[in-house]
Parts: sequence; structure tokens; C-alpha cells
Amino acid sequence: MSTKGAETRQRIVHRGLELASRFGIEGLSLGELASSLELSKSGLFAHFRSKEALQIAVLELAAERFRQSVVVPALRKPRGEPRIVELFERWIAWGDTCSLDGGCIFVAASAELDDRPGPTRDRLVQIQRDLQATIAQAVRIAIEEHHFRSDVDPDQFAFDLYGIVLGYAHAARLMGDGAASRRVRIAFERLVEASRVALN
Amino acid sequence: MSTKGAETRQRIVHRGLELASRFGIEGLSLGELASSLELSKSGLFAHFRSKEALQIAVLELAAERFRQSVVVPALRKPRGEPRIVELFERWIAWGDTCSLDGGCIFVAASAELDDRPGPTRDRLVQIQRDLQATIAQAVRIAIEEHHFRSDVDPDQFAFDLYGIVLGYAHAARLMGDGAASRRVRIAFERLVEASRVALN
Repeated sequence: MSTKGAETRQRIVHRGLELASRFGIEGLSLGELASSLELSKSGLFAHFRSKEALQIAVLELAAERFRQSVVVPALRKPRGEPRIVELFERWIAWGDTCSLDGGCIFVAASAELDDRPGPTRDRLVQIQRDLQATIAQAVRIAIEEHHFRSDVDPDQFAFDLYGIVLGYAHAARLMGDGAASRRVRIAFERLVEASRVALN
Repeated sequence: MSTKGAETRQRIVHRGLELASRFGIEGLSLGELASSLELSKSGLFAHFRSKEALQIAVLELAAERFRQSVVVPALRKPRGEPRIVELFERWIAWGDTCSLDGGCIFVAASAELDDRPGPTRDRLVQIQRDLQATIAQAVRIAIEEHHFRSDVDPDQFAFDLYGIVLGYAHAARLMGDGAASRRVRIAFERLVEASRVALN
């Protein structure tokens, strides 16, 4: 693809992510997207032949941003508990930043797509499985480092952490709960505390 | 209102709930709803003058079903931990039943409405605040009954339980996680265990 072609594609996907975080991933319309970018519909079709292809590109852009904002900085932290704490804190901060422009696309898309089988849903599930696997792997490392007990179940930890973060997003964004950021840290600290090797 | 009028209103709201659980609460359209019920648009307008009025009636019907399926049976259980366990088990079961016809309307509506101020969002928030208050009250009773320790924070417990249930809905419905129903019980049991009065 030419440089100009690649730039146009990038503009389309960035605008697509903006629109999707406001109106939902199902609310994306190739026609509206074209007109909001002052592109012809055929110009847009040259890049994305279907709504699904565009939806998937939008999810991948969001996943890449998440990776850069949350996962990569966490991996720079020392192995074990510090890495898990960083992952948690950046995940929470990601949720807060998200909320400036219409809410976390993953939370919204999860509710939209849970009963709509197809390639977009498959991609969304895969992105979130990758995150769960990243968490579970960080827990395995914390066990190796003797920060966490050897009987901690990494997949249960990932399930629990996911629930804590979803609960936070719900309380902070929908419920306007001013105590949410304090409560989510109490919940996280209890999860970590229950996983730690007891000090003698 | 005449009996016939009340029946028509009820038919409209029931069909509205079906459609909203499939297409979202924002996806409700007075026109489509009228035609799917073979009503004239003016016939429907006689009952609901705005989309918002219909959305609120749909949320109230869902809240009433939740109350009958989850809260009322839990209140029949003995005060204290048994009541909290029943509330949890029925809440989980409600999520499962929901998923037969397009997903839990509260989860979907929360993602849709979190950045859309207005009376529909206000009603949704109030319904969920009522549920949090019900949980917190059940925890206060469990403290009175000496099932839970006196230093347990009822609102933190409600926050934690909400996260556990949201995590379950996400894992079971979107992720198709076969272990979700086992994992959610482990998470709940740990929450309760951390709240219990230690046995001497």
C-alpha cells in the first residue's frame, strides 16, 4: 500500500474508534464514517470492504493502545508482585482515560456483541483471552519469585481481577460512585494479600 | 385506565423488554414496536408519548422481575449468611436465564447509557443503587446475627459482590468460559469467608 493509502487507512480506523466508543461498535456505519472524513464511499471501501473488517481493525487499534498503555509498562517493572500492581493500576487508569471519550470500547463492545456470533465477536474474545493469559502468566512469575504462594490458581486470580476491574468501571462510570477508586484498591489489596506468601 | 388499556400497555412493555434485551435499550423504536404488535403508532403513543417513557417502563418491568426472582425469595431465607448466599445464587441464576433471550438488560443498558445523561440513565442508576442498598442491608443483618464480623464494611461488600457477579456475566456470556460457574463460587466463598466471625 502507498504511504498515502496507509495514512488514509489509519485516519479511517482512528475515526472509527472515536465513533465506536461513543455509539458502539455495532453503531459504526461505513457511510457516516466516509462522510465524517470527507471521503467518498468508494474511497473508504477501497480500505474496508465490510463493516466487520472495519470493526476488527478498530478493536485491534484499541487493543494496541491498551498494550502500549498498560501491558508494556507493566512488563518493565520487576517480576512478581510489582508487575501485577502496575498492571492493575494502569488498567484502572486506562478505564478512567477511556471515559473521557465515551467509555471503554471493550466494556461497551462486550455488552453489544455477547449474543452476536461472528468474526468481530471472535476477535473481541481473543483480545480479552490474551489479557487473561497475560495476567495468569504474571501470577505464575509471582509464584516463581516466591511473592505468591505456590497453591495460588493463576486463572482464578485472572478471573477475580477481571471482576474487580469490571466492578470498578461500573461503579465509577455508571453509578458515579465517588468511593469507587478507594473501594477497588481495597478489593485488589485483599486479592493480593490472599495470594501472598505468609511472612514468618 | 380501562382493563383493555392496561392490557395493551402491558403487552407493549413486555415486547419492549424482549426487543431491548436483544437490540439494546437505545435500540428501542416506537415505530418498530408498534408494527411488531400490530398497533397503530397513535395507539402506541396513547400509552407512551416518548421513547424515554417506554425505556423507563421497560427497566421497571425488568427490575420487578429481578425483585421477584432474586430479592423476594432471598428475604424468605433466615437472616444473615443464608440470606446472602441465596441472594448470590439467585442473582447468578438470573444472569443465566437472562442469557436465553439476549442477555441481561441491566448489563447491556449500563454499557449503553453510561455516557448518556437523562431520565432513563437516572432510573437505571437508581435501580442498581437499590440493589446495592439491599445487599448492604443484608450484610448489616449478618453482622447483627454475629455471622459476619462487626468491622465488615457493608458498602465494600456490596461493591465486591457486584464485581464478582459482573465478572461472572462477562466470563460466562462473552468469553464462553466453561469454568465460570465454578470460579464465581470460589470468589464468592472467599468474600464470605473473609467476612465471617472466626470460629473459636
